[in-house]
Amino acid sequence: MAERNMPAALRFMLAARRCDLQGLEELVHTCKLVSNIAQLVHALQKERGYSNIYLGRNATHYRTELDQFSEEGDALERIVRNGFELMDLDAVGSAERGRLYIRIAHVFYSMESLGSLRRRIRDHQISARDATAAFTQLIGGLLAVVFEAADSAADPEITRSLVALFNFMQGKELAGQERATGVAGFAHGYFDDEHKQRMQSLIDNQERSFEVFLRYASDDAKARWQVICTNEVQAQTEGFRKIAANTHPAASVDTGLCEFWFEMQTQRINAMQALEQYLTQQLQEQCKNSIREIRDEVSSHRRLLGQLAEQHLPLEQARLFNVQDGDITPQPQDVMPTQVSRSILDLLQLQTRQLQQANDELTEARASLNERKLIDRAKHLLMSESGLSENEAHAKMQRSAMDGGVRMVDVAQRLIAAAERVKNGARTARA
Amino acid sequence: MAERNMPAALRFMLAARRCDLQGLEELVHTCKLVSNIAQLVHALQKERGYSNIYLGRNATHYRTELDQFSEEGDALERIVRNGFELMDLDAVGSAERGRLYIRIAHVFYSMESLGSLRRRIRDHQISARDATAAFTQLIGGLLAVVFEAADSAADPEITRSLVALFNFMQGKELAGQERATGVAGFAHGYFDDEHKQRMQSLIDNQERSFEVFLRYASDDAKARWQVICTNEVQAQTEGFRKIAANTHPAASVDTGLCEFWFEMQTQRINAMQALEQYLTQQLQEQCKNSIREIRDEVSSHRRLLGQLAEQHLPLEQARLFNVQDGDITPQPQDVMPTQVSRSILDLLQLQTRQLQQANDELTEARASLNERKLIDRAKHLLMSESGLSENEAHAKMQRSAMDGGVRMVDVAQRLIAAAERVKNGARTARA
Repeated sequence: MAERNMPAALRFMLAARRCDLQGLEELVHTCKLVSNIAQLVHALQKERGYSNIYLGRNATHYRTELDQFSEEGDALERIVRNGFELMDLDAVGSAERGRLYIRIAHVFYSMESLGSLRRRIRDHQISARDATAAFTQLIGGLLAVVFEAADSAADPEITRSLVALFNFMQGKELAGQERATGVAGFAHGYFDDEHKQRMQSLIDNQERSFEVFLRYASDDAKARWQVICTNEVQAQTEGFRKIAANTHPAASVDTGLCEFWFEMQTQRINAMQALEQYLTQQLQEQCKNSIREIRDEVSSHRRLLGQLAEQHLPLEQARLFNVQDGDITPQPQDVMPTQVSRSILDLLQLQTRQLQQANDELTEARASLNERKLIDRAKHLLMSESGLSENEAHAKMQRSAMDGGVRMVDVAQRLIAAAERVKNGARTARA
Repeated sequence: MAERNMPAALRFMLAARRCDLQGLEELVHTCKLVSNIAQLVHALQKERGYSNIYLGRNATHYRTELDQFSEEGDALERIVRNGFELMDLDAVGSAERGRLYIRIAHVFYSMESLGSLRRRIRDHQISARDATAAFTQLIGGLLAVVFEAADSAADPEITRSLVALFNFMQGKELAGQERATGVAGFAHGYFDDEHKQRMQSLIDNQERSFEVFLRYASDDAKARWQVICTNEVQAQTEGFRKIAANTHPAASVDTGLCEFWFEMQTQRINAMQALEQYLTQQLQEQCKNSIREIRDEVSSHRRLLGQLAEQHLPLEQARLFNVQDGDITPQPQDVMPTQVSRSILDLLQLQTRQLQQANDELTEARASLNERKLIDRAKHLLMSESGLSENEAHAKMQRSAMDGGVRMVDVAQRLIAAAERVKNGARTARA
């Protein structure tokens, strides 16, 4: 039976299934994008690292590698850019879509200054610190795109994988920042208090990111992570972290440790990238499987509904007749063919239960994203209230959490609740 | 400048704004639907009430009114049905859209048996209890559509209004169920324990629904609600509730109170409907204003971005040249025209902040919907675990909340957390 001739209940059931399919098709494209973004981020991390040591140590022997990484980054940037360009901006969009577009606009904006950044690095017209900050900003923008992708996916399993990947990328990016901070400290011979604090906070946040990653990762991915965590580079890293923490103006170390640290951290980050690639491959596999499954489901659903519709026809005609007649008087027989009606109800209830379950699983998978949003929101509240910088606000919340023996998200929730009370108080006072 | 020639960052910013506009346009249609649903629900509530007394009291003098209400209901049903039919099921849909479609499929399914229900009522071939249950189910389905509409709206202010309206409709529906339960009790001469418990739970849940309504309602709507809460009918209602609670087999009342109660409750519900209509009118006004505002915003945004794009052109060309050339070597001058670049960044940051704020407000407005979802989820967990019926599960959770001096949602959260622990334990045991 053609779809437009089906009874309305069946048409809406079919349309609901089609929404799932369309959401998944869009998600396949997004996941492909995310994989490319992961590669671009890695290239930019490398370029940031080499720029950093090139500028900080005036290590001209790194120039060849730097040029090579810039070229790699440029090629990957073009791929990501093309992926963005392929998005159909004229298609009907949802609010989530809008959020994604804004994140992408940020990325495009940051990418525009890459060329001039690269020139300034080669001309030594920018400090290591500022160059690092510029790369970090672009990487942050790319991670924000991955965050939105995870937050707007409507398939629970894929959401779990995206959440795992996002947190892994986040942890890896913090490891990259630790590399940069370490390079600056060792190049200087010792770490001052601010530097030490920054190192410690990067280490703590890495741990937290990888914890969340482990909560959502597949058993395979977890096993691979365990291997990375117990290798020699990790042991060396911990040794160097202790050395860094024990330096001070009167106890400086050989600045040659700087390059040693850099190479070691580069090894560490490259090992992470191998796992990251595994994660993005898994993600793409999952997308392919899910879309095959749901396509099969939609077509068997369509067949089933078509069969039901054929049997259901007399009822629908009777119903139409009734409505057109405005006839509500008794008729000799009950027109509802009970068996068909029951099958429809069963299907309807099944579809509702599946939807419910998918929603519950989604809520669970998105929990860590929501915690992050709460923390960001509280941070911005603190910034606007007390004029703190983003880093200061973050540090303040972190101290409160440590002092109170609670999680960051609990501190965030309290801050937001307090702000709400003030706002509502003001509202009541105005009324 | 034509949009496709704009720099990518600007195109994505514009597309994000367009998503807002499209979301709002869809929302206007949904709000219109919700208004029609509110009217249909009211008609069905009347029809349920009159069917109930017609069957329960064998009060044939209510037949004329009953027929009139059935006709009214039929006409409003056609309007709602047409509204559903106007939805473009082939348009690209989101997961929220899918949820809405399933709810609508349920409504279509329930509406199909209305004709036969009406015949059976007139033939006295159905008990008052079963007829009430059938109407209640359809009304529940319609309320679920309003719930999804509230949950999928992306405009914070309109979400607040939809949440207020949904909770008001919910409270009014519980008042309708209280009317029916009261009719059954008074017609019987007294209320047994089950009936008394049911009355009390309907009263408690009404209060909670109206509390949430008040949290989200405009000051105007609140003032109108205060008038309803302090009028004579409300005082009489409370008197009758006390009488009902004091009846027992050895202390029955004149069954004539039944019709008195019915008329009184009908007055009470009609007063609620007047406020409900005010709420739906406010909602439509809001939609009109919002859409006008955002249309203006989109077109001024487009103008502004167009101007920026014109000034930005040299950069974009330079950038394209760079990319095509793969050229990353230094150039004599920095190509970024700083002023234009800053304006773009300012706009981008403004749009991000607005989006952030809208998201925060949405989260706040949806809080009560999420609580409801949590309660429903915990209820279903209880049902599948201990084989309880929906009412039993609800009653059990309510008792736990009362005994523990906590809110229903806290009980729900504990139940869900316990179930998660069991599930995760099982997962670990399997691994």
